[in-house]
Amino acid sequence: MSPSASSGPSASSGPLDREDLRQRVQKSLNTFVAGQQHLLDAVSAELGPLTDALTELLHGGKRLRPAFCYWGFRGAGGTDSEEVVVAAAALELFQACAIVHDDVMDGSDTRRGKPAVHRRFAALHRTEGWTGDPEGFGTGAAILLGDLCLAWSDQMLSGCGLPAEVLRGGCGVYDEMRTELMGGQYLDLLEQARGGGSVERALRVARFKSAKYTIEKPLHLGAALAGAGQDVLDGYSGYGLPLGEAFQLRDDILGVFGDPAQTGKPAGDDLREGKRTALVALALESASAAQSAAVRRHLGDPHLTADGVAVLREVICETGALARVEAMVEELMADALAALDAMPVQDVAREVLRELAVAATARTV
Amino acid sequence: MSPSASSGPSASSGPLDREDLRQRVQKSLNTFVAGQQHLLDAVSAELGPLTDALTELLHGGKRLRPAFCYWGFRGAGGTDSEEVVVAAAALELFQACAIVHDDVMDGSDTRRGKPAVHRRFAALHRTEGWTGDPEGFGTGAAILLGDLCLAWSDQMLSGCGLPAEVLRGGCGVYDEMRTELMGGQYLDLLEQARGGGSVERALRVARFKSAKYTIEKPLHLGAALAGAGQDVLDGYSGYGLPLGEAFQLRDDILGVFGDPAQTGKPAGDDLREGKRTALVALALESASAAQSAAVRRHLGDPHLTADGVAVLREVICETGALARVEAMVEELMADALAALDAMPVQDVAREVLRELAVAATARTV
Repeated sequence: MSPSASSGPSASSGPLDREDLRQRVQKSLNTFVAGQQHLLDAVSAELGPLTDALTELLHGGKRLRPAFCYWGFRGAGGTDSEEVVVAAAALELFQACAIVHDDVMDGSDTRRGKPAVHRRFAALHRTEGWTGDPEGFGTGAAILLGDLCLAWSDQMLSGCGLPAEVLRGGCGVYDEMRTELMGGQYLDLLEQARGGGSVERALRVARFKSAKYTIEKPLHLGAALAGAGQDVLDGYSGYGLPLGEAFQLRDDILGVFGDPAQTGKPAGDDLREGKRTALVALALESASAAQSAAVRRHLGDPHLTADGVAVLREVICETGALARVEAMVEELMADALAALDAMPVQDVAREVLRELAVAATARTV
Repeated sequence: MSPSASSGPSASSGPLDREDLRQRVQKSLNTFVAGQQHLLDAVSAELGPLTDALTELLHGGKRLRPAFCYWGFRGAGGTDSEEVVVAAAALELFQACAIVHDDVMDGSDTRRGKPAVHRRFAALHRTEGWTGDPEGFGTGAAILLGDLCLAWSDQMLSGCGLPAEVLRGGCGVYDEMRTELMGGQYLDLLEQARGGGSVERALRVARFKSAKYTIEKPLHLGAALAGAGQDVLDGYSGYGLPLGEAFQLRDDILGVFGDPAQTGKPAGDDLREGKRTALVALALESASAAQSAAVRRHLGDPHLTADGVAVLREVICETGALARVEAMVEELMADALAALDAMPVQDVAREVLRELAVAATARTV
């Protein structure tokens, strides 16, 4: 798709630009995946369920990471091109890997209102009446599909068509992002295994697992692809890190209080999975003995009922944890927006980055 | 390490060259991993178990894939350099991902005589007395460590220092290899789930999961990095594909009859895991009703005893399956070596490739 009045860059308002980018990202992903089909077909005609699951996975989500990458690029003075959209879209394939593997690790049943990939393949196993353990088959298929997404993400970025000397800087950022995310995810596993720690520890996980990965690094990737200097990178960190923490804290709140119709997950799913978020850590810090006991009894119970969810929500409200996290979100957002105002960035991008900040931390998803 | 009389290319005999390459590959891997440590340290000082597990994983194995890559490069007229050794060593990181994730998918307890990575982390969980499910923690950590290896493999190859235009061709081969392996692995999962099929289907899995991945693609990667033409690539396929199938068939035999002290796995481990290999498919093709019943009873039994292993071994011998697979290995080896003699390749590499063929299909590991 070549840039045009309707699909390329323009002076149009942010929301239009954002929707336009979403469509271009989707088209890039479709083109890339279609281009790989012949290799999978050569292995076997029976690989259809893998690409079906991937196609469904790639049709959804807010496309936050490509958006931050693309507008990070434009903000640093980069000129719109299909190549940079392809580079930005590669982040969605990486995110697909993160989602699929994360759902296996968390034992999550649903993602965006549909069965998680490992559950989808377990269901296929049952429907077909195959031998062996359906859950084991589902886990295996999900591990492989995630690996494929991880490999393809790198391939899509490297093959986006930007010159090698431009790509080199971008790939450096991308490599750092991957290592930090894997490290952050392991730290998250450790926190759950230890039964949680301080608010500070929960925020540390959020920083590496979410703030850097979702916002700062995509911005830096875009900036690197535009050949930006250190001042722009620093400016993006000043905006991206507080915004990323606010994003994670909002996600923590939605995981407990979110509407299933909007989150695509059952009510209180994070509580059922026993996630040790800053919200939970704050509640425990101020909990009475009875409240602490309630948390110990219900948090992480895989069979947690609606009543159990209600009890935990009450503790989180009554200890003041919810109000404190809401206040933290507001404060972090104010920091991010102040940094945005002060940073050396193209105005067309500044406007969209402001809207993206609001979209990333909205009370609905 | 700069090439020298003792460590660089020489007219020395193959075994010396092979040992020398192994040491250079190990050194490249050590250097790469050490260079990433600061990123993990920045996330947390508590990530030590991840790098410990990786370090152990990277100290072992036959280094077949780097060897085929390096000698594929030399055979195509490439001049020895540290850069090409780094590129070849990147295949070991990819293999580390394949091993760690494969062991999770197969539920394997051991690898090279030590606990598989997921078991290692489950044991850590138990030792530390953490909360939650030790096996779930082990699986999560293994998925993440595999992901890290996959990302680092790509990073190590891209950053090996060879010029961008040389790397482009190599990365194309590498990308194909990754996609084919993931497809082949899924096909393997399907075969186990369906309870196995024909010999032809088992050989198809072996071709994509093993022959292309272990031998043909590493050779092609080396050839591409040397800027070789289609005649060399075709020659390498003529040698690599039959050799790769022979390699997998030998592996199938060792999985049933191998000495635990040599394979690093318990006796008959493939039988306990219910692997649907060509060896098993051939046995079933010629089995009597009583022999088929014995296979149905014992194959894939997670609690398979030494007696059960003995029963299955007897069926595999008495049906003539073992003898037929041994004959297939010999025939495939003869094809590979004939192709090697006929192919346009540098003589120094031809000698080593002949030795590698013998090493890859040896009756001991």
